[in-house]
Amino acid sequence: MAGRNHLYIPGPTNVPDAVLNAMHVPMEDHRSPIFPNLLKPILQDLKKVFGTETGQTFVFPATGTAGWEIALTNILNPGDKVIIFRFGQFSHLWAEMAKRLGFDVEIHQETWGKGIPLDRLEQRLREDTEHKIKAVLATHNETATGVTSDIGGVRKVLDSVNHPAFLFVDGVSSIASIDFRLDEWGVDAAISGSQKGFMLPAGGAILAFSQKALAAVQTSTYPRCFLDLKDQMTANKDGYTPYTPNLPLLYGLRKALDLLLEEGMDNVYARHYRLAEGTRKAVAAWGLKLCAQPGFESNTVSAIVVPEDKDAKDVISTAFKKYNISLGAGLSEVAGKVFRIGHIGDMNDVSMLGAIAGVEMAMLDCGFNIQPGSGVAAAIEYYRSTAKA
Amino acid sequence: MAGRNHLYIPGPTNVPDAVLNAMHVPMEDHRSPIFPNLLKPILQDLKKVFGTETGQTFVFPATGTAGWEIALTNILNPGDKVIIFRFGQFSHLWAEMAKRLGFDVEIHQETWGKGIPLDRLEQRLREDTEHKIKAVLATHNETATGVTSDIGGVRKVLDSVNHPAFLFVDGVSSIASIDFRLDEWGVDAAISGSQKGFMLPAGGAILAFSQKALAAVQTSTYPRCFLDLKDQMTANKDGYTPYTPNLPLLYGLRKALDLLLEEGMDNVYARHYRLAEGTRKAVAAWGLKLCAQPGFESNTVSAIVVPEDKDAKDVISTAFKKYNISLGAGLSEVAGKVFRIGHIGDMNDVSMLGAIAGVEMAMLDCGFNIQPGSGVAAAIEYYRSTAKA
Amino acid sequence: MAGRNHLYIPGPTNVPDAVLNAMHVPMEDHRSPIFPNLLKPILQDLKKVFGTETGQTFVFPATGTAGWEIALTNILNPGDKVIIFRFGQFSHLWAEMAKRLGFDVEIHQETWGKGIPLDRLEQRLREDTEHKIKAVLATHNETATGVTSDIGGVRKVLDSVNHPAFLFVDGVSSIASIDFRLDEWGVDAAISGSQKGFMLPAGGAILAFSQKALAAVQTSTYPRCFLDLKDQMTANKDGYTPYTPNLPLLYGLRKALDLLLEEGMDNVYARHYRLAEGTRKAVAAWGLKLCAQPGFESNTVSAIVVPEDKDAKDVISTAFKKYNISLGAGLSEVAGKVFRIGHIGDMNDVSMLGAIAGVEMAMLDCGFNIQPGSGVAAAIEYYRSTAKA
Amino acid sequence: MAGRNHLYIPGPTNVPDAVLNAMHVPMEDHRSPIFPNLLKPILQDLKKVFGTETGQTFVFPATGTAGWEIALTNILNPGDKVIIFRFGQFSHLWAEMAKRLGFDVEIHQETWGKGIPLDRLEQRLREDTEHKIKAVLATHNETATGVTSDIGGVRKVLDSVNHPAFLFVDGVSSIASIDFRLDEWGVDAAISGSQKGFMLPAGGAILAFSQKALAAVQTSTYPRCFLDLKDQMTANKDGYTPYTPNLPLLYGLRKALDLLLEEGMDNVYARHYRLAEGTRKAVAAWGLKLCAQPGFESNTVSAIVVPEDKDAKDVISTAFKKYNISLGAGLSEVAGKVFRIGHIGDMNDVSMLGAIAGVEMAMLDCGFNIQPGSGVAAAIEYYRSTAKA
Repeated sequence: MAGRNHLYIPGPTNVPDAVLNAMHVPMEDHRSPIFPNLLKPILQDLKKVFGTETGQTFVFPATGTAGWEIALTNILNPGDKVIIFRFGQFSHLWAEMAKRLGFDVEIHQETWGKGIPLDRLEQRLREDTEHKIKAVLATHNETATGVTSDIGGVRKVLDSVNHPAFLFVDGVSSIASIDFRLDEWGVDAAISGSQKGFMLPAGGAILAFSQKALAAVQTSTYPRCFLDLKDQMTANKDGYTPYTPNLPLLYGLRKALDLLLEEGMDNVYARHYRLAEGTRKAVAAWGLKLCAQPGFESNTVSAIVVPEDKDAKDVISTAFKKYNISLGAGLSEVAGKVFRIGHIGDMNDVSMLGAIAGVEMAMLDCGFNIQPGSGVAAAIEYYRSTAKA
Repeated sequence: MAGRNHLYIPGPTNVPDAVLNAMHVPMEDHRSPIFPNLLKPILQDLKKVFGTETGQTFVFPATGTAGWEIALTNILNPGDKVIIFRFGQFSHLWAEMAKRLGFDVEIHQETWGKGIPLDRLEQRLREDTEHKIKAVLATHNETATGVTSDIGGVRKVLDSVNHPAFLFVDGVSSIASIDFRLDEWGVDAAISGSQKGFMLPAGGAILAFSQKALAAVQTSTYPRCFLDLKDQMTANKDGYTPYTPNLPLLYGLRKALDLLLEEGMDNVYARHYRLAEGTRKAVAAWGLKLCAQPGFESNTVSAIVVPEDKDAKDVISTAFKKYNISLGAGLSEVAGKVFRIGHIGDMNDVSMLGAIAGVEMAMLDCGFNIQPGSGVAAAIEYYRSTAKA
Repeated sequence: MAGRNHLYIPGPTNVPDAVLNAMHVPMEDHRSPIFPNLLKPILQDLKKVFGTETGQTFVFPATGTAGWEIALTNILNPGDKVIIFRFGQFSHLWAEMAKRLGFDVEIHQETWGKGIPLDRLEQRLREDTEHKIKAVLATHNETATGVTSDIGGVRKVLDSVNHPAFLFVDGVSSIASIDFRLDEWGVDAAISGSQKGFMLPAGGAILAFSQKALAAVQTSTYPRCFLDLKDQMTANKDGYTPYTPNLPLLYGLRKALDLLLEEGMDNVYARHYRLAEGTRKAVAAWGLKLCAQPGFESNTVSAIVVPEDKDAKDVISTAFKKYNISLGAGLSEVAGKVFRIGHIGDMNDVSMLGAIAGVEMAMLDCGFNIQPGSGVAAAIEYYRSTAKA
Repeated sequence: MAGRNHLYIPGPTNVPDAVLNAMHVPMEDHRSPIFPNLLKPILQDLKKVFGTETGQTFVFPATGTAGWEIALTNILNPGDKVIIFRFGQFSHLWAEMAKRLGFDVEIHQETWGKGIPLDRLEQRLREDTEHKIKAVLATHNETATGVTSDIGGVRKVLDSVNHPAFLFVDGVSSIASIDFRLDEWGVDAAISGSQKGFMLPAGGAILAFSQKALAAVQTSTYPRCFLDLKDQMTANKDGYTPYTPNLPLLYGLRKALDLLLEEGMDNVYARHYRLAEGTRKAVAAWGLKLCAQPGFESNTVSAIVVPEDKDAKDVISTAFKKYNISLGAGLSEVAGKVFRIGHIGDMNDVSMLGAIAGVEMAMLDCGFNIQPGSGVAAAIEYYRSTAKA
């Protein structure tokens, strides 16, 4: 099929050409005296993205799924009680992982489309006077529903009830794209993956931990090896890794960090907001609704609910086969009910307008009752009025 | 600036990732026994793109401008009389080149927006009973105005008056994108460049010559060396080149030919027509006009006339600086009066919709009286109804 | 420093240009209907490299270290007894991992420089009449000492005493370079990594399991999630992965498999033997000895013992800083006593001669009493006499 | 064939990975307001390589052959008399070009293996009291024989007889590798190509002209167009080009200049001397001779004379087919009599030792009476004693 594939899934995201080039490197000795010149500044610069000065950052040659496991198995002890609100496929999977790893998982169901209900969390933590709950697992951005939760609010709840539980945050589809403040929010373990806001292929679990969490790592008895943080800490101290690193990923991360920090994290966050907001204007103009309820809209992915008589899978399939656009599918409970447009990573206004126009075509082909050009028109007006000259 | 630059100039066009990769090669000995395995099939497959079985193809490490000069200086003799119709910047430049090279150039002016007037050509050739005119210089696709001329018609005119003049065709922005038939149309020298329909960077003059032209090459006395066809013919015969070839360009051309021939040239031509026609629907919906007069519309580039109170340069500048879109400028006589959208090369429906939406934003910013989304809506309806499932 | 770094460590190995190019890809939707067209044939072709028709292959976005853990935690149950012979840094690390993961690890020390002692293994297995030993952990190629063990021999021992223990093999630095026969040798879990014989960057744990092992996976109670084989099996069945795959790695692996299978695995093995043997001829000509004792010499890496009054670290440091050659260091017990030359992956005769010549320079600089050119001369004579015309 | 091809021809030379990466770029608008930010600094930095502050540099999308033609046709007038000493294939070709282009070429034959005989030149210029000779064509480095001429000496001769002829210098295989001083030596036109010391693929004619030459360009009546300097000067003044530039080549040149200037031109020249000298030590150890006579040895390429009973083509063919080494062939008069080793561009000690060892193998295979390892030993001793720690 001629022309490029137009990739609008919420990860892997489009890798900038400069990052792909930076990854195109010959191999080198990861035990050489110059290797630390690569790794150490990466770990340092990652702190700026995670919003931490006191915490410590890590890169594992693994994925975000591994990141979830690293947080659980390095900080907690076998059988520890954790609490999680489940409102989408990824909060579901994290809860399931915790159960499979033998933790005592207290799952609270929340409507898909909402995020962490701070009031219910507060009530539950207040009841836990014996502090049996060792960690709160919080999904910052639920990629399945396009919902962003208020992590600062979670911290306030913990503080208000004086609860010592660790705060673990899944920021796989938020960090590097949506404002994140490890120190300010008192996050103990923040988990991201390379293939989202970091604009890299999958293959990197990118993490930050608080000093409180790192202290717990020293005493945790959970068996682990490949995903062991202590081994990383020991090796990272001198700028090395405990086993062979993924060199192209590190070189790509170096370049991605350069791009992000050059743009400025606040500008990166503002750009993601603008791109998301334009998409939301289009959705409204189509007369459709987001899966996310008001106040929970994500700036990295929009899950759009199709009318009851339609199947979102048809939109996705038509978009892919007829127009070479890749959209995100609805997962699990919302399969067929939503399709998702990622507006995360290396994107700009015209990229998003291509997505919106393409989605219009696919929806029209599927018999949606929408006005051709209506979504694009709404987005155009928004982008025009907010773009910097 | 985050996100990719959206490139819609009529050349250099977007190089497909697969072609960029194919060009990413270590150097090799161009005199090795295996080098001909690369060059010979390229020259053979090029014939399919030029529509020739009896002609011969060439690749020079130069540009389309060199291609013009190669045709003139290898086939003609110093001082020979040639005729050219001038109706845009590129036909103008070719005519000027012929003058500078000492040929006797008879320039006929035609309105910018029209192509070769077959009736006037016929009349002039008929008058030339002594056959002083040695070559007709025909610009197949005038990139500056978005005008395509009828080369088959030119051949019919030549035949109808039994005129033996050579037919030289500038197909820089048509060949590999718009139907071209060297044999059927009796073209003696067809000139293209790598950076247009061949989807490569500039740096390759890609040519095809008829046997009649090649015979003339043997006797032409015009001094030349770097651009000498005989040297190429001698070296190409064994699969080599007379001087060091541009290896990445050859490897890229190999891949580009694979992509074109796999899609099928007829499909390539049909795709360019569709992409162009969608753009034209948008232009009409905006209430604007093409520079090209009816019947002359190009399928590789649309030059769009702005209202008299507007400056097309502002549209282009706004598009570039505010939205990271690159459009073609009006050149020379139409500077400020038109902007150009290239729909040539590695493009598909969503690429074009990005261009159209982006141009809408830029025009609205410049105070154009157009309906937001109108152009996109028109293009959407056209693309939807004509796309293959 | 001008010129390329000459990389002769035993991993990561030199990535062929064609593989680096194959990895230079835009991202795509890993849930698209066409993604299985990539993954399924890779898993199928991997079987040819592992020497299995009845087993099943896997690719995890992790490293060889993870591969060790995958075998242990998916097949065994917590606390199971395993036996391992330790004779180098990597057999040491695997044993340590098994201990840390809570297995009952019976470690038998063997001289560094030797491999698995089949007689002692047989004796120990024969004693284990209750079959308390659930798995034999065998290091096929001990990268630290350049020692290859006889895995077929281990199988014969197991069979001869009718012991049902699983046979786990660390083939990280052997598979795809040294003959490997999962089916014939009755290997239950074979572990490799992408950055050795597969000529890719690190980031892929590449594995093969017997049906007997896969049956055990169904009932193992060891907690695991990211490294869970069942999740992979479920997703792989349809050509997908349980979480986002490392796309460049898969595309690179596709190309690497093409290169290996085109050369033919037997030819690949023969090439590694030749390259290693030439290196050994040079070592002998220098009057030095391998760390590997006779009969245990590895075809992928040679660990060379320096005279007692020398420090191998000086050779390595001189080679790197003065001549831009990267050699492998001695690890742990042999630190300073050996340096290592990798002859694994995308190598040929002249590559090895560069290594040998470079090492000669570094040794001479360090005051070694060797004849300049002696190692090269010996290798030249061997390569010449065995090279195919 | 596994492993990389070892490329030791005197051009195209090995392109550093960083340069290949820099060339891997998406296309962009060469008429954009930011394009001059690329071109202008390149032209400025080129001056440092050509050794000029008062001259002007140019990059044509063509080759070194075109560079010869540019100098001749832009500075001279039709029929002008030029003088050239011919002592190799490339001085021969330049002389032939000048003849074909209609100049009055006075060719003086010199032994292949020697360079420009300053005494004969002085005598001839002294005789030319009417200053009929308009230009001296000097081949700085004759790539066919590995001979370097004394360009500073040519200038002294011109000055000593007060002759106003232009001094044109073919520096295709010297500039950026061997000391070059346009200003100091009063060179009027210096011609290079991208594929030699500039470590790029072919496709760029890289030139520098004196102000005296540029003044002549204004009045020269030789017909030219693609290779016209005035067009370049006009466009370059604002940072643009007269026709579409080869963007990857410019981006690659940017990077290559960064590498050269970072190393420092004096260090680059010293490195080429060392690499060449090590090669010469090997040649002497083999008991062979260079084609270059004493005092004329080139630091970028060594042409090695084989014994009378041998055919150098066999050495080259054996090296290529059996060992995947590419050597330069003898051309024209020395075909079969010499083979050539390029030591130009991105090379270091170990690269050269690979070449020398490989050549030893090929020569031994061809029955040469040489001691295995002898050449390598000699080079090793030289490189060791002169390498920087």
